[in-house]
Amino acid sequence: MFKLLKKDGRARRGTFETVHGTIQTPVFMNVGTSAAIKGAVSSMDLKEIGCQVELSNTYHLHVRPGDDVVRDMGGLHSFMNWDRPILTDSGGFQVFSLASLRKIKEEGVYFQSHIDGKKIFMGPEESMRIQSNLASTIAMAFDECIENPAPFDYTLNSIERTTRWLIRCKEKLDSINKEENTINKHQLLFGINQGGTHDELRIKHMKDIAKLDLPGYAIGGLAVGESHSEMYHVIDVVEPFMPEDRPRYLMGVGTPRNILEAVRRGVDFFDCVIASRNARHANLFTHNGVVNLNNAKYMRDPLPIEPGCQCPACKNYSRAYIRHLIKAGEMLGMRLCVLHNLYFYNKLMEEIRDAIEEGRYTQFADEMGPKFESRV
Amino acid sequence: MFKLLKKDGRARRGTFETVHGTIQTPVFMNVGTSAAIKGAVSSMDLKEIGCQVELSNTYHLHVRPGDDVVRDMGGLHSFMNWDRPILTDSGGFQVFSLASLRKIKEEGVYFQSHIDGKKIFMGPEESMRIQSNLASTIAMAFDECIENPAPFDYTLNSIERTTRWLIRCKEKLDSINKEENTINKHQLLFGINQGGTHDELRIKHMKDIAKLDLPGYAIGGLAVGESHSEMYHVIDVVEPFMPEDRPRYLMGVGTPRNILEAVRRGVDFFDCVIASRNARHANLFTHNGVVNLNNAKYMRDPLPIEPGCQCPACKNYSRAYIRHLIKAGEMLGMRLCVLHNLYFYNKLMEEIRDAIEEGRYTQFADEMGPKFESRV
Repeated sequence: MFKLLKKDGRARRGTFETVHGTIQTPVFMNVGTSAAIKGAVSSMDLKEIGCQVELSNTYHLHVRPGDDVVRDMGGLHSFMNWDRPILTDSGGFQVFSLASLRKIKEEGVYFQSHIDGKKIFMGPEESMRIQSNLASTIAMAFDECIENPAPFDYTLNSIERTTRWLIRCKEKLDSINKEENTINKHQLLFGINQGGTHDELRIKHMKDIAKLDLPGYAIGGLAVGESHSEMYHVIDVVEPFMPEDRPRYLMGVGTPRNILEAVRRGVDFFDCVIASRNARHANLFTHNGVVNLNNAKYMRDPLPIEPGCQCPACKNYSRAYIRHLIKAGEMLGMRLCVLHNLYFYNKLMEEIRDAIEEGRYTQFADEMGPKFESRV
Repeated sequence: MFKLLKKDGRARRGTFETVHGTIQTPVFMNVGTSAAIKGAVSSMDLKEIGCQVELSNTYHLHVRPGDDVVRDMGGLHSFMNWDRPILTDSGGFQVFSLASLRKIKEEGVYFQSHIDGKKIFMGPEESMRIQSNLASTIAMAFDECIENPAPFDYTLNSIERTTRWLIRCKEKLDSINKEENTINKHQLLFGINQGGTHDELRIKHMKDIAKLDLPGYAIGGLAVGESHSEMYHVIDVVEPFMPEDRPRYLMGVGTPRNILEAVRRGVDFFDCVIASRNARHANLFTHNGVVNLNNAKYMRDPLPIEPGCQCPACKNYSRAYIRHLIKAGEMLGMRLCVLHNLYFYNKLMEEIRDAIEEGRYTQFADEMGPKFESRV
């Protein structure tokens, strides 16, 4: 299903065919945690800002409204009126970061809901069942996301369990996909590489899960506080062991520059809340650097956030107006900022794809990386 | 500029020509207090939901971002990118309801900003200058909005001062409109009838201000806690003394049924925050009554808020989805609800206009009034 169209150094230009349409890679998935993008952005808006893949969070939807509700409404595509690909995470990361009183056992994880304290058990089979109820295009494997740094022995035990969990995920999803009432019988499973910051464990785990012949592989456990150079190092270490004919997804990454560097190292899929979260704080990405609209110098600025930008905010409103909305606490301010930042990310991926196709990716990444990090 | 096209009983179907386009009356003005509709609704959205006139609040914009900023950005139309009519209130109502430590003198009102406690003076001339800076299509006169009930003597003194203030507003605006740097040299002034609940004072004041030959007249000081029947009574008392060839604006009113009853009594213009405020609490207007999406019975309801409704929320999303968004605290939930309620109000006015044109207004109002107040 993944087709590698062109390589430029290690950077890859590809397509990934799914039952909900073809994804052009590299791609940035737009994060809609609870089946909506924070900042009053709808699925109609996502189409307007060039989103290819929406990402929703299994844990959040499991606790509210409940994956049974989403299933009864025809799955996530029908629920949120979005006909393009959706990726759901496994719930694992939220179990480890949000839930309290968790207990990890061989069968899975016992924890309490962060909403109402309700006791919940989630293991590989439960995660697959929930994601099948959500009926996403791509389901992610249920894994343990360990803290960095973690001791060698703990990490070794953890990745071995994560491999066993992955085998159970695969068996379970294969079985669910054959059930008559399954909404998306073509749901795909991506495996997740773990191993903390231990190179040899990262490689061992990648080799182990590659054997399972899954339609895609992710690198997990990064962007959780380690330095950027550590993150790039892990990609460098793992990438040679990732199947070349499968898409690679770097989970939870990152800034525009992080994405440029990861694409350079052979990554195809990305997701990150930074685009919408920074937007909600009026920190806006442009090709000339970051614009912070809280700055008083924008009070009378008639320019759009980024001159020339074709997003709904830049096509219609000035920095002065959007700054006023933010200062006045008007939700519209956040909405316009989120629309801009997501459009920027989606557009950036298009520019990345063009640069790879035209064999000038290194130059593009070298030039734009530092620019993106400067301040306007 | 006002053209009365048809009367059906006392209900009036008309047009009001302005420099920013022709308004079809009766009309509901969509309230965007700080130059934005609360609920992340933009001027682009307003076009999509059939808004004819946007209403902004002079007091709010004076204190933030400052009417000087709006003027420097080319006025409200340019600032918020809206090319249709805008009405600004005088700031008077907010001075009397929001500001603290106010002191009313013949020259105007001394008060403190509700934002930063800054001492502000506003009189007729200041209100006109600020509204001219905002460059709205229609400016409202600076008046005293007294509490109901108020003693006869206090009310008499107040309406006499309000008449003197109106004369000063007219003189000042006439003069500002002739200044070279005035953005909208065709800005119109509407006078405001006051008089509390004293019939004879309401009539006296209406007669006094009618003599000033203004392009429009409003009934103020209602919808501030009095009963609906008292409100309708005041309209019945004042209406015969309002110039028939000028539009009549009932300020701050009201529910769909209030509007039906006021149109029946000869009112042409309306504004009210109830449409957007109720929406933000998931209370939604439909032709079959109020839908409260907080109700658990909508958890799995695949219907739109109102079947057949052509608003952006109803065309794309289910009650179940919007309810989930509200419960999950997603801003998108509020946005969709506000879009629906404003569309409902704008559509209602269209239905009212059709009913008057077709000479069946009484039947329409009799039938729909109670329906609008029922619960689905």
